[in-house]
Amino acid sequence: MTTHGVVDTPAFMPVGTQGSVKGISPRELRELNAQIVLGNTYHLFVRPGLDVIKHFGGLHRFMNWDGPILTDSGGYQIFSLAKLRKITEDGVEFQNHIDGARAFISPEIAMEIQAALGSDIAMALDECVPYPCEYDYAAQSAEMTTRWAKRCKAVASAVLSGESSTRSPHGSDALRTAHTTTRQLLFGIVQGATFEDLRKQSAQAIVDLDFDGYAIGGVSVGEPEQEMMRGVESAEPFLPRDKPRYAMGLGTPPQLLEMIARGMDMFDCVLPTRLARNGTAFTARGTLNLKNAEFALDKRPIEENCSCDVCREFSRGYIRHLIKAEEILGLRLITLHNLHFYLNLMRQARSEIERGTFDQFRRMFVAEYKPRDAMTVE
Amino acid sequence: MTTHGVVDTPAFMPVGTQGSVKGISPRELRELNAQIVLGNTYHLFVRPGLDVIKHFGGLHRFMNWDGPILTDSGGYQIFSLAKLRKITEDGVEFQNHIDGARAFISPEIAMEIQAALGSDIAMALDECVPYPCEYDYAAQSAEMTTRWAKRCKAVASAVLSGESSTRSPHGSDALRTAHTTTRQLLFGIVQGATFEDLRKQSAQAIVDLDFDGYAIGGVSVGEPEQEMMRGVESAEPFLPRDKPRYAMGLGTPPQLLEMIARGMDMFDCVLPTRLARNGTAFTARGTLNLKNAEFALDKRPIEENCSCDVCREFSRGYIRHLIKAEEILGLRLITLHNLHFYLNLMRQARSEIERGTFDQFRRMFVAEYKPRDAMTVE
Repeated sequence: MTTHGVVDTPAFMPVGTQGSVKGISPRELRELNAQIVLGNTYHLFVRPGLDVIKHFGGLHRFMNWDGPILTDSGGYQIFSLAKLRKITEDGVEFQNHIDGARAFISPEIAMEIQAALGSDIAMALDECVPYPCEYDYAAQSAEMTTRWAKRCKAVASAVLSGESSTRSPHGSDALRTAHTTTRQLLFGIVQGATFEDLRKQSAQAIVDLDFDGYAIGGVSVGEPEQEMMRGVESAEPFLPRDKPRYAMGLGTPPQLLEMIARGMDMFDCVLPTRLARNGTAFTARGTLNLKNAEFALDKRPIEENCSCDVCREFSRGYIRHLIKAEEILGLRLITLHNLHFYLNLMRQARSEIERGTFDQFRRMFVAEYKPRDAMTVE
Repeated sequence: MTTHGVVDTPAFMPVGTQGSVKGISPRELRELNAQIVLGNTYHLFVRPGLDVIKHFGGLHRFMNWDGPILTDSGGYQIFSLAKLRKITEDGVEFQNHIDGARAFISPEIAMEIQAALGSDIAMALDECVPYPCEYDYAAQSAEMTTRWAKRCKAVASAVLSGESSTRSPHGSDALRTAHTTTRQLLFGIVQGATFEDLRKQSAQAIVDLDFDGYAIGGVSVGEPEQEMMRGVESAEPFLPRDKPRYAMGLGTPPQLLEMIARGMDMFDCVLPTRLARNGTAFTARGTLNLKNAEFALDKRPIEENCSCDVCREFSRGYIRHLIKAEEILGLRLITLHNLHFYLNLMRQARSEIERGTFDQFRRMFVAEYKPRDAMTVE
């Protein structure tokens, strides 16, 4: 339950990096029954910038999406996109990837930015270490992430109790507004790289801080799938059962079901939107690369028996033509289908869980699903 | 009246070059109340190719558009896009601009292709001469265009009377199908470059052949606006009043109104879709380049009092952000607004004509409209 509505779990969050789920309008998101979208704090901070979004009254109004929004803390993108990073206990200094302007983000500033964005769920600032990562660095980093989480929590608590102690370097009072007129939830993030004991320690320390929900970060950063599963499994037992659990940046359809089996509730992933722009569509039998010549005369929809508008109206052959001819409608149609596929998979999972048949459903789905094209989650 | 529905005139036809109005879905076209779209024969002939479109049962089914479609003859694109053209009395040999494959189009083949596409209105094959053009070449070319028009008409008449004499080099019987199960209209095209006497002679000769409608081609090919107006004015008196008159490839909003004042009924133009992709929106006061910094904090819609969905839901500031961030949604939103603007201008024109107040409306509109950015029609 968020300020802008209820989110049924397990839930998939389409990624709206720059204030738009790529290729898709808010109306289409509503028609897809998306219940929540993700916004990337780093991208929005860099462009159009906080002043612009505050001027428009927050991200919901800016992008005309009145459902729930989760914003990440910006940490992941600072560590994957920005240049000349300098990490200290205080925070991260970096140059953004658009115009190279210098900026500094601390746990307090990350909270302030997300308050200005007005998201329903904010994420604590974390350091997301790359794969592979040395044990010692991973340990120190996870401990710092815990200290950062504590500072984020302190900001949220101070605002809630009406005694904001943060002096905003951006001169904003948006922080207080977001927390008093709406109830912005705050999730902590478990780190610890691929090391079981670090994952456990991180989970315990983060849970001790008592957040509204818990995310597992630093997964799906290039490690083998088994390591990813183990990373989640190592942390999961220490996360309370009555709070949402969010596996960040995941994943393929089978991975989502495996994660649900391991107790995860929320997911975000660029695969359905990013692969669509490359002509790749998801089906229960695996992915189809619609650029392939085999589809040129194919009158079938992307997926037979699919209930999405695209599959009701358009053939593989037509969509292939659009992709080959670089017509924008092609990637739009595949994006719509792919998002429907992910959102529908979550609906199916919820219904199977309710009926107590989820394990059977998961096993059958995973056995049927054959990834035909190499896929990587970036 | 066409096989797929009625078209009210004056009418604007959104351009669906490659089987898609760029960025827009057929559903959106219906919601915009577009009554007819244009398909480019040359582009579709090159990619996906006739075999593909025939396999799908024609262009309507291929692109899932059940309203009227007008196809051009391919001539204009052969003369503007293709390479190594060789024009003879028989037809045009060329290499396409995609993979350089050689092809040959004659008046008979142009008719056959359009029959296979299954358009509601086909255009006779013409030679569109560039601007500027020598008198002698323009005269010879216009005469050849008339002879080509006669051959196109002969094909249509032969098919209508059930005695198709064309042997299809593509092995297709689509020609007969299109003319017997549906009534494909055929328009002739007036040429004559910028020369009044040639325009007059061309118009008279083409009208003598008795087509279902008449187009004025070879305008808006780079000539000054006055020359363009004169080209239309020179031909117009010789076109019958009871047949549709189509000014090809036009134009800016004021140009369309001026053309309506000069008796033109149908228009097609890439401006609303092409300029949208560059961030330019049409308003009654002229164009806005939404990339400009002045719009960053602008909460107003593209056009105040505009009834389109985009203006009801999105601000200039948000759309500017999308365009700057190269988000596809940005060009989609501007395209939707621009098409609404053009289609609505035609609706207004129809209503003013009915009320007998069109001239006043046109004068006021043209006086208010200030093009703020350089615009060229390609």
